[in-house]
Amino acid sequence: MTSNPIKLGIVGVGKIVRDQHLPAVAKNGDYQFTAAASRHGKVDGIPNYPGIEAMLAAEPGLEAVSLCMPPQFRYDAARAALEAKKHVFLEKPPGATVSEVEHLKALAEKNGVSLFASWHSRYAPAVEAARAFLASARLTSAAINWKEDVRRWHPNQEWIWEPGGFGVFDPGINALSIATHILPPMFITSAVLDFPENRAAPVAAHVAFRTSNGLPVTMELDWLQTGPQSWDILAETDKGKMVLSGGGAKLAIDGKIVHDEPEAEYPMLYKRFAEIVRAGTSDVDLAPLQHVADAFMLGKRNVVEAFFD
Amino acid sequence: MTSNPIKLGIVGVGKIVRDQHLPAVAKNGDYQFTAAASRHGKVDGIPNYPGIEAMLAAEPGLEAVSLCMPPQFRYDAARAALEAKKHVFLEKPPGATVSEVEHLKALAEKNGVSLFASWHSRYAPAVEAARAFLASARLTSAAINWKEDVRRWHPNQEWIWEPGGFGVFDPGINALSIATHILPPMFITSAVLDFPENRAAPVAAHVAFRTSNGLPVTMELDWLQTGPQSWDILAETDKGKMVLSGGGAKLAIDGKIVHDEPEAEYPMLYKRFAEIVRAGTSDVDLAPLQHVADAFMLGKRNVVEAFFD
Repeated sequence: MTSNPIKLGIVGVGKIVRDQHLPAVAKNGDYQFTAAASRHGKVDGIPNYPGIEAMLAAEPGLEAVSLCMPPQFRYDAARAALEAKKHVFLEKPPGATVSEVEHLKALAEKNGVSLFASWHSRYAPAVEAARAFLASARLTSAAINWKEDVRRWHPNQEWIWEPGGFGVFDPGINALSIATHILPPMFITSAVLDFPENRAAPVAAHVAFRTSNGLPVTMELDWLQTGPQSWDILAETDKGKMVLSGGGAKLAIDGKIVHDEPEAEYPMLYKRFAEIVRAGTSDVDLAPLQHVADAFMLGKRNVVEAFFD
Repeated sequence: MTSNPIKLGIVGVGKIVRDQHLPAVAKNGDYQFTAAASRHGKVDGIPNYPGIEAMLAAEPGLEAVSLCMPPQFRYDAARAALEAKKHVFLEKPPGATVSEVEHLKALAEKNGVSLFASWHSRYAPAVEAARAFLASARLTSAAINWKEDVRRWHPNQEWIWEPGGFGVFDPGINALSIATHILPPMFITSAVLDFPENRAAPVAAHVAFRTSNGLPVTMELDWLQTGPQSWDILAETDKGKMVLSGGGAKLAIDGKIVHDEPEAEYPMLYKRFAEIVRAGTSDVDLAPLQHVADAFMLGKRNVVEAFFD
């Protein structure tokens, strides 16, 4: 174990990297940002490569990589990095199938490096407070409402509508990453997925879960929400009604705000990644992805109006 | 540990129970067939109940249950049985979602009883010989071809076309239960699922896998195959071309039949179940179900001609 900065490369320089990864890494002394690889994007002031293979070949000193390309292309890059004995940070979702991420986990172990399946929403500021509240109360039901405007948050992102791009489950998996962290274990009992007639991924989903102790949890995902956006988890308990809103930023109990602070999700993610690298462990919880797979398997498909960006 | 016969109840008395479970149990001295529960079916000579709750209440001496109702209804019955501290045999597929079976596994452990997620095709006569052959050879590619006539094998089984009924993956999961036993670990890279315009489950599927060491495996599932039926797994190796046909019954290498004997899948399943009950262990491999969930998540949906029985 060393406390020297971890030499980090980032692969797939798009919107999320510019908005979140670069500022988080820049402010974190645990890292030395060493190189970037991307087909289109470039980062100023460091070497840039057209792809991960070129970066790995030219930068033997790299110790870790963050993989931020669309999930359909993440496995090959992760495999190349793990086989080159680099620690790997996977943006969410960690892959296009559950099985491929299970393989990556085994591969990380075999190569003695760390794998981090990151779920940024789990690090939203009020999530731990919500978890503590629910651990102290008796839950009777919960509802997940995640309603946003895809045109605003994912303008012209074609990959997200392709098979493996998850559609409305791309934001929905953020909700699930929080729900699986704060609620009891649960499983899907029914689901309806709305597919636009011209798209291969759903634009809305209506999902019913049951917790392992028999309580109902509903999830409503909608990608055509204009006006106010909702990223809320509500829970009815014997200690009052909990509302975790703003994607995990704000917590209220019976209408009284008990937790509200600015988000720092990506800084927390990079803090966590450095922790597991230094500790020689991995952090790969696939429950959110498993629920998405189960929703697609069990869900009834409903064809709705065509979607155009 | 006792070697007294295990007092067994069977729930969901339909075609598979009459054709397979009852004859297998009758011939196996490890079991005392004690009761049956079913909404419609009845078994002569033993007490019959309308459902598992009534059976569990009236038969406190029961030690184990086999659950053979459609997968959409299996979780509640399994939960009731496990909480009553009965060992549980799950017909395939073990549930309608991966997550629910993970919960059952935890529940079995908590209650100190055995859970068996049975995959009958894994016990087809030539499967172990195929596995041994592939372990001794260098694989270059494999192909799974599972083509049968749904009207012949599942006449008017409406549940199989409902969400959670799996459609053509109901037989396809048999193929996967063999493939995941004899081939290297693999994951899906692309899939196309053909849904009849009037049904909620696919009638055909075209799936591409890659093994963890990079080899291609294809899977073709078709439920409209009339004439000769195909339940074959083919593998190209440095020691010749392997053909495992007849759903695992017959093995040929370069055209020469090396293994061909009558099937005894369900007798083997009940032998295995008695083994794990006596040993106090569980046997729950979810890889076949995981691949189906992944296929639904990653797969492109294609709408095809309506299906009528």
